[in-house]
Amino acid sequence: MIEALPDLLIQPVVRSALAEDLGRAGDVTAQACIPADAELACTFGVRHDGVVAGLVCARLALAELDPAATFDQRAADGDHVRAGTVVAEVRGNARAILSAERTALNLLGRLSGVATLTRQYVDAVAGTRARITDTRKTTPGLRQLEKYAVRCGGGVNHRFGLDDAILIKDNHVAACGSVGEAVRRAKAYAGHLMKVEVEIDSLAQLDEALAERPDVIMLDNFSLDDLTQAVRTVAGRVVLEASGGVNLDTVRAIAETGVDVISVGALTHSAKVLDIGLDAA
Amino acid sequence: MIEALPDLLIQPVVRSALAEDLGRAGDVTAQACIPADAELACTFGVRHDGVVAGLVCARLALAELDPAATFDQRAADGDHVRAGTVVAEVRGNARAILSAERTALNLLGRLSGVATLTRQYVDAVAGTRARITDTRKTTPGLRQLEKYAVRCGGGVNHRFGLDDAILIKDNHVAACGSVGEAVRRAKAYAGHLMKVEVEIDSLAQLDEALAERPDVIMLDNFSLDDLTQAVRTVAGRVVLEASGGVNLDTVRAIAETGVDVISVGALTHSAKVLDIGLDAA
Amino acid sequence: MIEALPDLLIQPVVRSALAEDLGRAGDVTAQACIPADAELACTFGVRHDGVVAGLVCARLALAELDPAATFDQRAADGDHVRAGTVVAEVRGNARAILSAERTALNLLGRLSGVATLTRQYVDAVAGTRARITDTRKTTPGLRQLEKYAVRCGGGVNHRFGLDDAILIKDNHVAACGSVGEAVRRAKAYAGHLMKVEVEIDSLAQLDEALAERPDVIMLDNFSLDDLTQAVRTVAGRVVLEASGGVNLDTVRAIAETGVDVISVGALTHSAKVLDIGLDAA
Amino acid sequence: MIEALPDLLIQPVVRSALAEDLGRAGDVTAQACIPADAELACTFGVRHDGVVAGLVCARLALAELDPAATFDQRAADGDHVRAGTVVAEVRGNARAILSAERTALNLLGRLSGVATLTRQYVDAVAGTRARITDTRKTTPGLRQLEKYAVRCGGGVNHRFGLDDAILIKDNHVAACGSVGEAVRRAKAYAGHLMKVEVEIDSLAQLDEALAERPDVIMLDNFSLDDLTQAVRTVAGRVVLEASGGVNLDTVRAIAETGVDVISVGALTHSAKVLDIGLDAA
Amino acid sequence: MIEALPDLLIQPVVRSALAEDLGRAGDVTAQACIPADAELACTFGVRHDGVVAGLVCARLALAELDPAATFDQRAADGDHVRAGTVVAEVRGNARAILSAERTALNLLGRLSGVATLTRQYVDAVAGTRARITDTRKTTPGLRQLEKYAVRCGGGVNHRFGLDDAILIKDNHVAACGSVGEAVRRAKAYAGHLMKVEVEIDSLAQLDEALAERPDVIMLDNFSLDDLTQAVRTVAGRVVLEASGGVNLDTVRAIAETGVDVISVGALTHSAKVLDIGLDAA
Amino acid sequence: MIEALPDLLIQPVVRSALAEDLGRAGDVTAQACIPADAELACTFGVRHDGVVAGLVCARLALAELDPAATFDQRAADGDHVRAGTVVAEVRGNARAILSAERTALNLLGRLSGVATLTRQYVDAVAGTRARITDTRKTTPGLRQLEKYAVRCGGGVNHRFGLDDAILIKDNHVAACGSVGEAVRRAKAYAGHLMKVEVEIDSLAQLDEALAERPDVIMLDNFSLDDLTQAVRTVAGRVVLEASGGVNLDTVRAIAETGVDVISVGALTHSAKVLDIGLDAA
Repeated sequence: MIEALPDLLIQPVVRSALAEDLGRAGDVTAQACIPADAELACTFGVRHDGVVAGLVCARLALAELDPAATFDQRAADGDHVRAGTVVAEVRGNARAILSAERTALNLLGRLSGVATLTRQYVDAVAGTRARITDTRKTTPGLRQLEKYAVRCGGGVNHRFGLDDAILIKDNHVAACGSVGEAVRRAKAYAGHLMKVEVEIDSLAQLDEALAERPDVIMLDNFSLDDLTQAVRTVAGRVVLEASGGVNLDTVRAIAETGVDVISVGALTHSAKVLDIGLDAA
Repeated sequence: MIEALPDLLIQPVVRSALAEDLGRAGDVTAQACIPADAELACTFGVRHDGVVAGLVCARLALAELDPAATFDQRAADGDHVRAGTVVAEVRGNARAILSAERTALNLLGRLSGVATLTRQYVDAVAGTRARITDTRKTTPGLRQLEKYAVRCGGGVNHRFGLDDAILIKDNHVAACGSVGEAVRRAKAYAGHLMKVEVEIDSLAQLDEALAERPDVIMLDNFSLDDLTQAVRTVAGRVVLEASGGVNLDTVRAIAETGVDVISVGALTHSAKVLDIGLDAA
Repeated sequence: MIEALPDLLIQPVVRSALAEDLGRAGDVTAQACIPADAELACTFGVRHDGVVAGLVCARLALAELDPAATFDQRAADGDHVRAGTVVAEVRGNARAILSAERTALNLLGRLSGVATLTRQYVDAVAGTRARITDTRKTTPGLRQLEKYAVRCGGGVNHRFGLDDAILIKDNHVAACGSVGEAVRRAKAYAGHLMKVEVEIDSLAQLDEALAERPDVIMLDNFSLDDLTQAVRTVAGRVVLEASGGVNLDTVRAIAETGVDVISVGALTHSAKVLDIGLDAA
Repeated sequence: MIEALPDLLIQPVVRSALAEDLGRAGDVTAQACIPADAELACTFGVRHDGVVAGLVCARLALAELDPAATFDQRAADGDHVRAGTVVAEVRGNARAILSAERTALNLLGRLSGVATLTRQYVDAVAGTRARITDTRKTTPGLRQLEKYAVRCGGGVNHRFGLDDAILIKDNHVAACGSVGEAVRRAKAYAGHLMKVEVEIDSLAQLDEALAERPDVIMLDNFSLDDLTQAVRTVAGRVVLEASGGVNLDTVRAIAETGVDVISVGALTHSAKVLDIGLDAA
Repeated sequence: MIEALPDLLIQPVVRSALAEDLGRAGDVTAQACIPADAELACTFGVRHDGVVAGLVCARLALAELDPAATFDQRAADGDHVRAGTVVAEVRGNARAILSAERTALNLLGRLSGVATLTRQYVDAVAGTRARITDTRKTTPGLRQLEKYAVRCGGGVNHRFGLDDAILIKDNHVAACGSVGEAVRRAKAYAGHLMKVEVEIDSLAQLDEALAERPDVIMLDNFSLDDLTQAVRTVAGRVVLEASGGVNLDTVRAIAETGVDVISVGALTHSAKVLDIGLDAA
Repeated sequence: MIEALPDLLIQPVVRSALAEDLGRAGDVTAQACIPADAELACTFGVRHDGVVAGLVCARLALAELDPAATFDQRAADGDHVRAGTVVAEVRGNARAILSAERTALNLLGRLSGVATLTRQYVDAVAGTRARITDTRKTTPGLRQLEKYAVRCGGGVNHRFGLDDAILIKDNHVAACGSVGEAVRRAKAYAGHLMKVEVEIDSLAQLDEALAERPDVIMLDNFSLDDLTQAVRTVAGRVVLEASGGVNLDTVRAIAETGVDVISVGALTHSAKVLDIGLDAA
């Protein structure tokens, strides 16, 4: 799971985050107070239990400012760690470490927060067939990283954007006239490597949707009874995704209806950061 | 307060957010299901009470995909609105509106979430002299927008980056040998338009810090008693900022100690999105 | 089909193409010989029979240099036109038109060339169940446009990159130990909106592949007999894609074996430009 | 001839080509099927006779994804090699090599295709005074690389853009009133390091053009007889370039008329890729 | 001469200059003190006699911040104006005008400074055959604009970069063994639209250089007597460029030796800005 | 003082400067005349007395083209050196050194020119309390580097942009109705780490400005008598900045009035380059 994304994809995010923080004049405090050649040894320590994700961001942030710095990773992305755990030790130019600190922590804390929340949902449905998935309600500019964090937390990814799968919603159905026509147009448009999902908001639409054999049917804001009924009707012929009104209190019951996938916007739009700090070694 | 930031600063964020969502092939669902020349009228509706921030992002996202679309703003950034309020009405090309929807909502919801949380803190300290301020614990790439949202919520901004003010922390003090020496170096370095703040973590450091007359002293993780004592000792000679352990339960008592500023990382790193949706008109 | 891609996705390509041609000093010939305010009316004319694709590129190239210019489209992307057909009439600043000419023609000619060649393959398999699809053997920087041109020619698109579908090839099989194990890993990794395809190079691998139920099996360099046999064995349970050794002489026979999809690298890596020119009106 | 272009100029093209292929989620097949630390050794092998160009692109593509990978070049750009020749051996991280493969091959194959076709034209005019040159009918974004490939094939380069030489065509002449006036304006505009070329389309224009002493006269779509006559009239006073209607069947006869330069758009707009593959070592 | 460069080439410079000035938070003074919808009318006034260049930059800077603002140009680039002359009148959003002011003036003043100094050199050599030309000693990022300003001042441009002409200097000669060999290699390398210039530093090298017929010979740091002698020897067979030790005191005498071109690094590396201000109308 | 800015902030400037010079085809002279593997040793030598600034730019320019080249710095930014001093020795690939030469010298010469001029002003006010500061009249794209050069010359920096401090000028006062109201609005807007400066143009405005306690009052174009009077009136309560009409003839007398800061636009808008050259070792 570690470093599943090539540096090439992450560097632009890290660089622009650093540039945003350094501004025009760089770290004036470090320039004023720290000798240019001072060295420092520090540790990244987790202050609350949680799942780590995004250590690569911390490594790259430091490397941008001091390519000779060492970054000794002591945990792996995806590890569930206890408060007090040191996840990495760094040693290098003191100005570089202090200037990179906030950028590294902002990314690492945010991604670990997403992974930690995902893990809570994944644990909540343990033993059912349901998989937890994310949405496109991600932070602009960080989608690939946040979706990676979801995987670190044990979730699976929904589509990455508007272009890699078809997801038919109510406005599309309205434009096409019916659920059936919408799925037909979608399947005619899609190449053989693109999946088609259609959202329905009542059991009444299920048969019409099913008849066109989309790859996935999204059951939006269904009651538990309706979810159960839908699972029974479909009988494994297409993948069923439950969405809407999902939180840690409701997710277990939803999973127990037998749906295949449960999508949770909160994973990325409302996760709290995991508190991680940089301490002098 | 409305649209205090020029479009030039916001467009790059909006464009890259759209590009991230459109990917290589664009909105395949719209292409498959919506005629190229179909028109649509929709409203942006707030689903929970909160403070709106970032309407400009929604306007720009739509304008990127349909320059001829209309965007009639019905509320202003900074407005506290009730669930059910329509904050904007849009009309334009149907594909454009649906393709821009998620980008617009991701930015608008996130910024409104920051503004809403800020307002809660600001309300909590009403009647005291304390102002609520943010930190650099912002989302990489969105700092200027999130700091704008803090202002929309009634807060004031801390420094924007490492370069626009000096903030001396423990590692800097360690490198300089003492709080006093650190402030002296900082004041020698700073030009006449750059402020100097020093963080102390106990009353024992207060006199030494005060003697060098920084512009601001940050009292980090002080008890209420120690904050009160510090306010009394300083007696208005420098600005005092309280930080650490601030939440909605504790902020009032902190404010009542008489500090000038209270900084709250959670404003930007752990705000929940405000639920806003796009509905057919 | 017209303008299926939003301008936002195409503008960066057009702008960098113009910038590449204008260099540092701009169009020195136009500056030397054409008065700054001269007007010109021209037509884009096709000089050989073919399928047009990419008129949006010509429109955007002109608009970059003269936003007030008019671009009257007389044909639509996807139209099969005869030599001599005028596909667009333009009128505007003379320097702008002449400076944009080569960029417009380079993109329009290339994309129309891809569409034209695709149409030849599509026509060649008319009446069979086979669809013609592209590959990732596209021109660096132009993938989305070339895949759009393939659709203009009647083809469908294979995956757009390394990230939107799983395609298991021999090296991946080698790393996993067997075809079956590779598909299992892939299906465990893929989310519910990502398809899994596996390439096999002999009938001997077919049963093992089929047992794991990938979405698509690619039959690489199979003889016609083996293709026929594979179609019979699979009997519609997964999609079958033929690849390798496909050209205009062989494609019909391949299609008649009953495969679902035939992928053709030449569509994008070896199409000749369609000769289109700009003529004074 | 090898690596005549600094990496700085080529890296942006390679990086954006890789990013286009990796998309948001990177190489999902490699992530699913290949252990993160697996190593691989491969060779780049040429499958048809041809002239190699662009090995630097393959080297840089691999280095972007695995800086520690080795790339042992076994041939040089400009070498004419036989089918079966190994032009480079690589060894490094397996995921990196497989993820870079398509980008490397797309660039290497395309540029080698241009070099190979150029060499055919150069060989066709061997023994005459004519040099083969390219045009601005290049692939948007790849002009510098394709012009480099033309040099690898033994050709020389025409101007690189609209800004580094003046080339007067019919529209410019029309705006100036006459060929003579156009050349006069051009020579007045040009600095002492910029050449002036004028295109004429009949012998009738030759004397007028010649009288103004441009650096080069382009004879556009002249018959062989007219080319011969033009060469005789000019008698070496200016450089003569033949253009229009040039292909491998006609180029020898054109060269034998005595013209100095023959420009061939097909070199870059219609070359087929040279088939090069990556094979496990 | 007016607006010889397309906006497309200038906008990136203007945008990044504005972004550099606006920083992360925009113009905080305007936000604090000026109502968002206030209007303002101002004039750009020249405070010293000089030649105007770069009005397009002022227009574009304003348009970026207020697309609806009017910019009425009252002078043209290249005009020699008196102190007190109003060169443009603007009217628009007050915040936009004040925020764009410094960027507009920084570009306009600098370019007008280059044009003004160029005009002084051009006037100093009036009546001789010598033309004044620039060098590559330009401001990084502004080369195209500064070379445009040189043209506005009546000068002509030397090469624009390392790639559009060959200029052989002492280090190149050293690598080749002799002046003659260097020119031979250069002419073999150059296409038919690329000029070759060779620098010599004594009369002793003149015959060897001349024998190879470069397009231009640069006489570097020659005495007036040696320049005269070189002109006599060459007798018009190649273009002669004098360089080194040129200032307003020496340029007339140098011109009177009969050289064709005199290059002056100071035009771009040491011009003072022309004092231009923005005044309330 | 050496290398106070992280490479990350400077590399984009250096890279784009190199790209501007290399153009599309790179250094054609080096390609034509210098073997690809030739080595060279050179020195950067200062040709006039002055203060060095920007050696990092030279180092990075060379490193971009030859990462293996050595750059031995023999002086530090901020050093005042004599004509003839070697400030750095370089050794590496000959093509790389010659191709990077002009970019390195353009940046190094310009920044050293700024530092040298700054030092002259700083020396001129030696012994007074006045500090010399810059303005926003900097070269677009080079602000951070030029402000760094000012520090190398012994100056201090004014604000870096429109966003890091409030500076109220006449137009802002006009919009607010009075100096006092303008300062009040500014102080209400500013966070606790942002300073507020107000410009006044006569003694008559001093008391009103002073009453609102801005951080700094700018005395614009005051006579020496008025400056003296203002210093006496203010008596150290706020920082006083003198601006307007400052040159090397007047700066001493201005300083002797007792003002705290003197701002000099010429430091960045009209400094001559320091003549530095690259010589074969």
